This record gives sequence, structure tokens and C-alpha cells, in this order.
Amino acid sequence: MSDPTQTVLHRLRELIGPDLEQTNHLIRQHLDSEVELIPTLGTHLIQSGGKRLRPMLTLLSARMFGYQGEAHALLAAVIEFIHTATLLHDDVVDKSNTRRGIATANSVWGNKAPVLVGDFLFSRSFQLLVRHGDLKVLGIIADACAIISEGEVLQLVASNDLKTDEEKYMAVVASKTASLFSAACQIGPVLAGCPDADVKRMADFGTAIGIAYQVVDDTLDYAATVEKLGKTIGDDFQEGKITLPVIHAFAHGAPEERDFWVRTIEKGEITPDSLEQAIAMIRKRGGLDYSMSRARDFARAARDALEPYPHSAEREALLMLADFSVDRSF
Amino acid sequence: MSDPTQTVLHRLRELIGPDLEQTNHLIRQHLDSEVELIPTLGTHLIQSGGKRLRPMLTLLSARMFGYQGEAHALLAAVIEFIHTATLLHDDVVDKSNTRRGIATANSVWGNKAPVLVGDFLFSRSFQLLVRHGDLKVLGIIADACAIISEGEVLQLVASNDLKTDEEKYMAVVASKTASLFSAACQIGPVLAGCPDADVKRMADFGTAIGIAYQVVDDTLDYAATVEKLGKTIGDDFQEGKITLPVIHAFAHGAPEERDFWVRTIEKGEITPDSLEQAIAMIRKRGGLDYSMSRARDFARAARDALEPYPHSAEREALLMLADFSVDRSF
Repeated sequence: MSDPTQTVLHRLRELIGPDLEQTNHLIRQHLDSEVELIPTLGTHLIQSGGKRLRPMLTLLSARMFGYQGEAHALLAAVIEFIHTATLLHDDVVDKSNTRRGIATANSVWGNKAPVLVGDFLFSRSFQLLVRHGDLKVLGIIADACAIISEGEVLQLVASNDLKTDEEKYMAVVASKTASLFSAACQIGPVLAGCPDADVKRMADFGTAIGIAYQVVDDTLDYAATVEKLGKTIGDDFQEGKITLPVIHAFAHGAPEERDFWVRTIEKGEITPDSLEQAIAMIRKRGGLDYSMSRARDFARAARDALEPYPHSAEREALLMLADFSVDRSF
Repeated sequence: MSDPTQTVLHRLRELIGPDLEQTNHLIRQHLDSEVELIPTLGTHLIQSGGKRLRPMLTLLSARMFGYQGEAHALLAAVIEFIHTATLLHDDVVDKSNTRRGIATANSVWGNKAPVLVGDFLFSRSFQLLVRHGDLKVLGIIADACAIISEGEVLQLVASNDLKTDEEKYMAVVASKTASLFSAACQIGPVLAGCPDADVKRMADFGTAIGIAYQVVDDTLDYAATVEKLGKTIGDDFQEGKITLPVIHAFAHGAPEERDFWVRTIEKGEITPDSLEQAIAMIRKRGGLDYSMSRARDFARAARDALEPYPHSAEREALLMLADFSVDRSF
């Protein structure tokens, strides 16, 4: 428990323990299918020690606005299903080998099953949303799903292209990652029957925390140790993904550094030494510090969004999550 | 127009021309995204001369039950979007090179974009369904999507496994193909506010026509010419898919024939002569005739489902589609 990351997660789980347990129960229950490979593959990823960050946002925001019902646990499970579906498809698209410290589904079962099980999780999510029966929630999640896939395609188009600037990068991050954080946070005030202004404010909170989270993720890919991150460091580099540390290093690099980035990221001419050189150049140009400072800007924006609300254990927990999205080791 | 397939499609298009035009217009409109690759890739497949069979089922069944509104065109577009999404993912999963006589999206853009654009089409479909706002329709389509992906996974598990019998094969076909036909047919009576008994009857009609259609598809893969089918003949064989012609030929084959199927379908030991030998063995054991007779059984069941309804141009058109699902050249 000395690791601050674990400490934060532990405190959150104490606060919303029973809700989170109910969400985990519903995840197991609704992952079920007569086609055995579906729960097998779904469980492989979903039970592999994900942080449950997005469902926690739903649970906390519902309670913060005084929601007294039980539906928030189901909707939190839906949010985790959609997150898992995107991870399954992402790992196929990125040809990733490890995630959360274990082998990815595609590296165990090949590409076919993860594509199809991802589709199943999307579909199951909408079945559960229909059963819940709130068109407003359905709309929030359908919109988020469309924006996520647009963001993923945008990222694909931008990959290997050093003309991608910070603005375009932020657009990708806002779509592919922050839109689901935002949806997760909107569900609370919607369930509690709050005015649109509250829903909007929680959407902003979720977007900001989601962007901070992803920027840190992209920074850790050049900074973390493999053991802590639970996935291979340097994956983004190998894939030619244009993330903030690279954008900064390329923009401020000397001509020979810019040549290096063109050779590696754009042309894919990667040697065994390339990643080490890339990390050195990013550090030399302050790319990690710059990225972390941008992440902190968004964490601050997230905190600001909650400013108008009175003190409550749930509000403090959400503020803690805003900080955690930046100050985490994995 | 001497080709009977074209003649049938032509007559149907005359009957529901304006509705189908409106559906095509909505397809183009809602395929739009700021991320250009999405409409580019979506249009590639969706405008490439698909028969629009499933949307036609929605349009005809709505009019047959006296629906006077406009929403059927939008829901028909949604059905085509979902169909297209499954095709995009299917072609990635099957590594197919051609469909409808043109290169598949994955063979042009690689695997990444079709996975993500498929996800976009699923999400866009649910956005449109939410906008339409009928939870019953949403439920029908969400259920169909979940059953489709279960069927696809079931097919994946059954592939290369000659223990797959006709019952299991029919379960795969009912899930992966017929469930969307069934959903397409249920929308009409739901829109028209008909009792559940009508919805159930149209579900049965759709299931039967869908099974007939897929069994014929699987038969054409060992019988059609490439020019007519618009895709490579023998794809299922190469992939080790267990379809009805193979199940029949294996069940009734002499020991040396059964050895051949084990070598090719189960072990993937395929030589340049294998497909020709497979076709010869299937023909010798009457596998094509048997499959077509089973398809005709389902087409008859589809016709029977419409028995109680009075004569109308739409009902006759649906009966014609039941026959067409069997007597077609592509």
C-alpha cells in the first residue's frame, strides 16, 4: 500500500465498495453467453486488473448528485463493457502483445475472436441500455461510441504523419479517450434528474479528466517501466503514433533530430537503438515535462468544473481522481 | 433484363422505388463524418451494388401493414448500416479479397480502418435509433446485433471442425444471418402499431428467408461462377468453414473421401487441385442438391408465415423475395 497509485484506488474502493462490487457482479453476469469463447475472452481482459476508473466515475457522480437508486451500477457496467470492446479492437488494430501485464486477447486467440467479441460487448451494452429504458442515457452513450470510433480513425490517419500538431493530437485524444470519460460522468446527474447545466458541467469534468489521463498515458509510453505500466514501453513509437512528447521534441528539435523523427516515425526505419535515442531526444527537448504540464492543465480544468458544488465525500473522491489521472505510475 | 435475378430486383424497385430512394439518400447523408476516411470507406462498400435486400424487407413489411409515415426509410438505412458493419468486420476476420466484384475494404486499406469504420457504423446506427426514439425498435436491433456476433463467434469455433453437424450449422446461420433479416421484417408491424402476433409472424418470416438465403450463399460458394457471385468461389473451403454441402458430403462420403475432408478442411492441407476435388465429391454425394432442397424448405416456411394475410402488392413482393432467396444467381 505504499505505492500512492494503489493507495488512491484503495481509498476510492472503500468509499464506493458495495456499488463497485455490484458493478463487478453485473459485469460477470452480463458477460455470459452460451457461446463459451465470449465469456472466456471477455473475462480474460475485463478481470485482468483494470482500474475500473470509468465505472467509478459513473458511480461517484450518481451518488454526488444524490441518486438513491440502483441503476448506476448497471450503467457503470455498460461503460466498462464499451471500454473493453474498444480495447479489444484497439489491440487488434495496434497488433499489441501485452496489456495490463498479461498477453492481449489477439496474441492468445488471434485477431478474429477479439473483433467479434468486441462487437458482442457493444451489442450487449445497447441491450442493457434498452432494458434500462432511458433514451437520454442511450443517446449519451451512442454519441460517445460514434465519437470514439471517429477519433480512432482520425488517429489512424494521423499516424506516421509528423505534420500532426498539438491541436490535432488533442482532437484525437478528446474523441478516442475523453468522450467515454465524459459519458461516464454525465450519467450521474441524468439519473439524479438534474438540470442540463449539471450534465454539461459533468461532461466538461469528464472530458478534462479523460484528456489528462490519455496525455499521461502517452507520456508514460516513453517514461514508465514495463513492470509498472503492464504493457510494453515504446509501443506508440513502434506503431508510428504521433503523441505529445514526440510532437514537442520534433517541433523543438535540431535538424538532425528532426531527420531522426522522419526516419523512424514516418518511414518506420527502426533499429534496436531507436527507442533509446527517441527517449533521449524527448528528454533533451523537455518533451516529458511539457506533456505532464499540459496534463496538469487539464486536471486543473477538471477540478475547476466541480468548483460550484458543495463539499461531499463523492466530490472529494472525484477531485482525487482528477489528481490521480496525472500523478499515477500506471 | 433477361437474367431472372435482375428482373426480380427491378420489379421490387418499381414497387417501392421512392421509399428505396429515400433510404439510399439517408444512407449517404448519415454516412457523413468530418473524418473523411469514414465516408470514403463506407461508400466503397455500401455503394458497390449491394442488393439492398434487408432494407427492402423493412420497407415492404412497413407498407404491407399499412404504415403511412416516413420513419421506415430511416430504419431501413439503419439495417443496411448494421449489415455493412458486419461485412466490414467479416472480411477482416475472413481475410477476404473481393466482395460484390470489387476489392474488399481490408484489401485496399488494411485491417485497421475497416474494424474502426465498422464500429462507427454500429454506433451511428444506434444514434439514429435513439433519434427515432422507439425503445421497441431499439430492442429488436440491439438483440439482433448481439445474436449476430454470437453466431459469428460460434462459426469461428466450429470452423475446421468436421464434428459440426447440420443442427449446429443451422444454429450458426440462424444467428449470424437470419437474425438481421428477422429484425428487418419486424420493424414494419412495430411501426404500424400491430399486435405482437404480427411481429412474431414477421420475425418467423424473416428468419426463414434469412436461413434460405445463407444456405444458398454457402451452396453458391461451391457452384457459382466468379463473375456472377462477385466474390471468389471456394472462399469457404479455403477458410475451413463447415457449410451444408460439406457436412452432407462428409456424412455420406466413402472412407477415402472422409480422409480428404479431414486433410483439407481440418488440417488445411490444400493443394491447387483441392477445390476441384472438393466440388467433385460434393456433387457425387448430391451435396448441392441436398443444400438447395433444404433452402427451399425454408423458403416454403417463409411463404407459409405470410399465409394469413390478405393479398397486397407488398405481400406478393415479399413472397417473391422468399422465392428469390433461393432462385438467384448471386
